[in-house]
Formats: sequence, structure tokens, C-alpha cells
Amino acid sequence: MKEIRIGLLGLGTIGLGAARILLEQQALMARRLGRRLRLVTAADRNLNREFDLDMSGVRLVDDAQAVVTADDVDIVIELIGGYEPARSFVATALERGKHVVTANKALIAKHGDELFALAERKGVALAFEAAVGGGIPCMKALREGLAANAVESIYGILNGTCNYILTRMENEGAAFDDVLRDAQQLGYAEADPTFDIEGIDTAHKLSILAAMAFGSEIHFDEVFTEGISRITPDDIRSAYELGYRIKLLGIAKPHGEQVEMRVHPTLVPLHSQLAQVSDSYNAVQISGDFVEHTMYFGRGAGERPTASAVIADVMDIARVLPDGVAHLAPPMGFVAAERRNMPTMPVVDAECEYYLRFMVQDRSGVLAAILSILADHRISIEAVIQKERHATEAVPVVMMTHSTSEGNLQSAIARIVALDCVQRDVLILRKEETH
Amino acid sequence: MKEIRIGLLGLGTIGLGAARILLEQQALMARRLGRRLRLVTAADRNLNREFDLDMSGVRLVDDAQAVVTADDVDIVIELIGGYEPARSFVATALERGKHVVTANKALIAKHGDELFALAERKGVALAFEAAVGGGIPCMKALREGLAANAVESIYGILNGTCNYILTRMENEGAAFDDVLRDAQQLGYAEADPTFDIEGIDTAHKLSILAAMAFGSEIHFDEVFTEGISRITPDDIRSAYELGYRIKLLGIAKPHGEQVEMRVHPTLVPLHSQLAQVSDSYNAVQISGDFVEHTMYFGRGAGERPTASAVIADVMDIARVLPDGVAHLAPPMGFVAAERRNMPTMPVVDAECEYYLRFMVQDRSGVLAAILSILADHRISIEAVIQKERHATEAVPVVMMTHSTSEGNLQSAIARIVALDCVQRDVLILRKEETH
Repeated sequence: MKEIRIGLLGLGTIGLGAARILLEQQALMARRLGRRLRLVTAADRNLNREFDLDMSGVRLVDDAQAVVTADDVDIVIELIGGYEPARSFVATALERGKHVVTANKALIAKHGDELFALAERKGVALAFEAAVGGGIPCMKALREGLAANAVESIYGILNGTCNYILTRMENEGAAFDDVLRDAQQLGYAEADPTFDIEGIDTAHKLSILAAMAFGSEIHFDEVFTEGISRITPDDIRSAYELGYRIKLLGIAKPHGEQVEMRVHPTLVPLHSQLAQVSDSYNAVQISGDFVEHTMYFGRGAGERPTASAVIADVMDIARVLPDGVAHLAPPMGFVAAERRNMPTMPVVDAECEYYLRFMVQDRSGVLAAILSILADHRISIEAVIQKERHATEAVPVVMMTHSTSEGNLQSAIARIVALDCVQRDVLILRKEETH
Repeated sequence: MKEIRIGLLGLGTIGLGAARILLEQQALMARRLGRRLRLVTAADRNLNREFDLDMSGVRLVDDAQAVVTADDVDIVIELIGGYEPARSFVATALERGKHVVTANKALIAKHGDELFALAERKGVALAFEAAVGGGIPCMKALREGLAANAVESIYGILNGTCNYILTRMENEGAAFDDVLRDAQQLGYAEADPTFDIEGIDTAHKLSILAAMAFGSEIHFDEVFTEGISRITPDDIRSAYELGYRIKLLGIAKPHGEQVEMRVHPTLVPLHSQLAQVSDSYNAVQISGDFVEHTMYFGRGAGERPTASAVIADVMDIARVLPDGVAHLAPPMGFVAAERRNMPTMPVVDAECEYYLRFMVQDRSGVLAAILSILADHRISIEAVIQKERHATEAVPVVMMTHSTSEGNLQSAIARIVALDCVQRDVLILRKEETH
């Protein structure tokens, strides 16, 4: 039986998961694949520790360079994460004619196009299923399973940390900061949680999904991105009363040659599939002109689920070795020559329905003044919630609008916060009719 | 650009959908594929009708044999349905060295293994994504995306007609027969609905999923199968009060070398993803030892969604032509030599929690007599619901049991229905803790 030789970069959580599958699941995978996957070597900076895994047959090194240049490695798995030195090691591996599998969304979002071009020149594969949606095989679904469709929209719950925090805020009525602190203690959120809670991780993933869906280059820097740190339990409750749940969504839609990409807390209908996705689970809804709505659900992170996606990529590549890489679906779903530099739609052109939370002095005439400005901008209101009343302190007023453009809304908001009795920090959430 | 030539059998609903994609989506698919798909010829018995599609460039014939033997066809799409003559045409196409794509679950469930062997001998592909879950790329997910996992369970809502009927029964409190009649008028159910409502269609699909998951041959005839025709709105209501929704599920689990396969109305937790799948939508939950729980949701039928899956298969094959068929994942997820004849677990060995509805004369001591027999069989009770009371007519008593074997339950039921005051027709539903 043909043997495919694997070199692994990084023995952190995911790296150990990948090693575990390669070592423990070998017999089953050989039955599926008709060839044997062998973990030949693995690199990690810190080898002075106990691994709860017997790696006696694996050449352990503390220098990643030794793995990406090794003669006895066919496929390199990069699980270091981050931009550098991951980018350099991946580039070296590709240059040396090795296939690469990575779970690194930051790397693909920022340097993917340059690396795909290099892989194409060298006739090798660069795969990244685990970079989006963790264990969920959603990239494969989009790239291959839905390849006959023009994609009409993508809605993704792509960050488990945010979804975990929002779920607990809803279940416990707890404040964002308290839940975040607890999540950090439990290991659900990192010490520096910025990438997760400010939506940057979701934007990485969304930019990859969008480019694959529409045949565009990857434009991570152009994703409109807002995080969840300003959401309060009151917002979650108000949204619920209006029939919605708040989720941090990555949203992508095509508009002719432009691509709309947004990441922000979003009101989704309570009975939609995405609204049921709780805790640290991820899900992606992909709709196409023939398939209509589809949805993919599972663990978006974690040692074992992420490793499942990494090794699925390894198996896809192993199946076509030594000389069938051209038979794999192109990594970004379109053949290289057919990918385009599609401009990102300016966010001011986005059309949305909005959830607005104003903090106002509860004085007669304030509500009327706000509504009058909105009416000036032809923004009609679907619902108003004003519960608390207080003579001296500011109280929240929540409004749901009908559809209008982001640009128009921003102009109206600028006028509203210039009113005496309205505070400047308006919370703007957006609503999407997910399925 | 290389051109791949397609021959189509059957211009019914799905056939027209497939033709529509091939004719209307050609440019987009060529960008994804790097080659052009051309619909060369199509066969249908009845060509004396208007098609709402311009097929002027397509050679239309009324003889399927002319398509499967045509020299200018690389891939045959079989959308005739049923066992014969579909089986003969597929076999002839494979014999002639043509690749075949089909949406025919009955054909694959009954004759799949013989046809896969023929395809293997001839070095051609036989693909069938659309046979299970309609437009949802769930076979690809199981075969490739989750290939690094030992599959632990499969739960599928695989029949849109049943799910539509159960959804309407719940929403309207309507009786099964009334909803079925209405569904037939609306085209959601066939004139002879037996295959759908008695679970046979689900059993076809489940037998394919199970064989692909566990590396077994396909054993459709051995699937334990019960339909939904005995469910009443009262059962749906009682289940809801207990925290469950009733869905027709296909269930498959491995037990060593045995495979458990069951199709029956099942209580699933109200907050699980599967409980949210309403109307004619389908969904499959697949759990693996590394990936944990995943779920795939979408349209299980219909012209456009099913055609989406059919053409995805065509594209997978087109990508490796002319000579890379060995680079495709094996059709049933395991290389041919590694598939086994795994025995089906006898249903009496299945362990379940049960929903039991007895019709009893409301006489003192009846409930005690039933409970005493259950206790004899070491079947403990989680809940009892008895609402109506009536001096002379039989009234329903609903019980939820803790886990016991099917065999033990059947023995207990046999003794219970021998009681004077209990009618013979006990409704037995099973509960599964879906995610």
C-alpha cells in the first residue's frame, strides 16, 4: 500500500489533535483511502514536556525549517497560527514542492492569494478546510457540493467565543464583561480576546468564504467589522421581544461585480436555524440560485473537531498523489485564471433593517424629535420599545426600522445625536432574515 | 477549453432542472471547472410537449438506449427513477465505459453494490449525491469531509413529504389523513404515498448512508421501518409537553461488527437542531469520534435543489477526465476491497427510551396493572400523561420509559395488551437525544 509522509508544524492543541488522528486512526483511514498516512516528523519549540500520546515513531524537532525542507515529507501540516513565521514556513514548503494543509485563517485571509499563486506555479496543493468553521466541512460544501450554483448569500456564525458569550448573556441575563471574564477562566476566550470579540477572526473567515463563493480575490482588509462588546442583556431581551436573537454574523452577498462583506452583531429570526446555534457551536448558511437554502453546523474550534478537518484535507491530497493535483478542485473554487479582483461594496450602500438603541433624557418631545428626523430621511419605524422611565437619568429607547441604506441611516443618526437630550453612543444593530 | 459531453435520461422534474443548470449556468461552471459541460443529448418517452427551456442545441430522443450507447457522451445522468429500466440503462452505460450520475435512491439502495462493482471493473465513476438529502451535499461531507472519523451515529430527516405532514399536523392540530389529502392536492405527496409515509424512501436513503459511514455493503431490506400514519395530533401535543417533537428519522449506529438501522417516528429534544427542521426541509446529523456533532440542512427534493446535487457530481467527475477516475474518493467512502458484509443488528437488541400510548378503559387498577407488568420487565417510567377520563369509552394513557431493549419492551407489551381493559393497538414511538 502506498505511503504518504506527513510533517507537522506545531504541537499545540490542534497539532496534537492532528497527530492523534494520524497515529490512532491509521487503519480506518487506510480503508477509506487505499493508502497509508504516516506522521514522519513534527516540529515544536517546546519539546520538554509530556505529550499524552505515544509519538515514539515520530521524529520530533524544535526547528520548523527542518520539517519544511525534509526529503521524506510529502505533505506539511501548518498549525503554528498567526502571520509570521507561519507564512515563511508555508512558502518554503510550497517552494520545495510539498503540499500544505493549514488551519490558519489569518494567514489565508491576509496572504492566501500570494500563497495560492505559488502553489499553482509549483503544481502542489494548499488546503485550508479547518480555517473556517472548524470541523464543519463547509469549504468543501461551498467549493464542490454547491459548485453548480451562483451563490446568493452567506451568513455565518464563525466565532465560537462570541457565540458562547452571547448564549450565556441570554441564558443568565449577565453582562458582557462578567461573561467574558468567566469565559477566559474556563478557556473559552483568550487572555487578549480582541481578535474574537471585535469580530476580526470572523472577518478573516468571512473574507475567505466570500472570495470562494464569488470567484474574487480575498479582501480581508475591506470587511466592515463590528464586535459584540457593546451588547447588553437588555438588548438581548429587547431583540427577543421583537422576535429575534442576536448573533455575531459574517455576511456576504454579491451585487453585480461588487461584493458586500459585513461582520456585526445581527438580529436573526428566533425560529431560523441560525438562531438555534448556541454555545461555542458554529454554523454557516449558504444559499444558491438552484439549491436554495443550505446550512452546515458543528464545532468551530477545539482539538479534535479542527483536527478532523485538517486530516480530511490531507486525505483529499493523499488520494491524488503522486501526480493528480490538477484533479483536485481549485482551492478557492474557481480556476486561478478565472478569479477576479472584485471590488468590495462600500458599506454606506448596504441596505438593512436596523435595531437602534438611543440613550435619552426622558423628556416630552424627545421621541417625537427622533422620529421626525428619521421621517425626514424616509426611514420608517416597525417598532418602538421604551420601558424604563426616569426623571433625571438617561433611559434606553429601542427602535426597529424598515429597510434603508447604511449611508442614509448614518446621516440621520448624526442629526439625532446632535439633539440635546440624546447621548452620543447609539447602538446600531442590523437585522437579517436568515432561514 | 476541454469539453465534457453529457447525456441525460429522463426529462421529468429533476431532469429538466439538470438540463436547466447545464444550459443556463454554463459560463459560471466553466470558471469553476476549467472545462465546459455540454448537454449533447437527452431521452424522454414523451417529447410531444412544451419545455420552458430552449433545448434547440440538444439532440432529443425517445429512446434511452440511444443515449447510453452514444459515442459522443462521456457522462450519463440517470433521472428516470425506480428499479427498472433504470438499472439496465445504468448498467449498459457503465459497460460502455461511460460515467454515470444518478439521483435514484431506490436503485442505489437495491442494486448499488452490483453497479459499484461494475463501475470499478470498467474504471468509470458512479455518483449519487442527489439520492440522499436532495440538494444538501451530505454524501460528500460524510465520504470526504468527515473521512478522518469513525462515525458514531447518523440521524436523518430524509423525507420531505413526511416532515411536511408532521409540521402541518403540529401547526394546525390536524389529523394525518386530512393533511395527507391536502398535501396530495398541493403536490407535496404522491397519489400513492406509501413509499414516503411508510418510511420506505427514508429506509432507502438510510441504508446508503449507513453503508457509507461504516464501510459495509448496503442492506436496505434489513432496515427496521415504521411510518407516520398512526401518529395523531394528540401524540404530537403529548410529546411537546414532554419536551420533544416527533420527526420521522432514519437512524444508524455501529455496534462492533453489527450495524443498527432503524426508520421510525422519533421524539427529538425540542431545542435540538433537528427539531427546528420544518416543512419539506431535510437534515442529517452526523457525529464522529473526532468531529463530534455536525449537521447538514437544506431542500431534500424539488427540481432545482436536486439538480444542484446532480450537477455537483457531474463537475466532480468532469474535473478528473479523461483519466483520473482513480483520484475520486471511492463512491461508498471506502476502497472496494475494504468494504465488508457487516450484519444488521437484530432490532430486538436495540436499546431505546420509549413513548407508549395505550388505549384503556378508565377503570381503577388499569394503570397499576400496566405499571406492574413494566416493573416485572425492569422497565422504569419517566412520565405518565393521562388527561381525558371517560366512563365507557377507551382513553389514551401515554408513558415515557427509561432505556430498555426492544425485545424486552415487546415482551412487556404483549402481556399488557392481554389485559382486559387495554386495547391491542399500542402506539410505540422511540426517543433519541439528537443534538
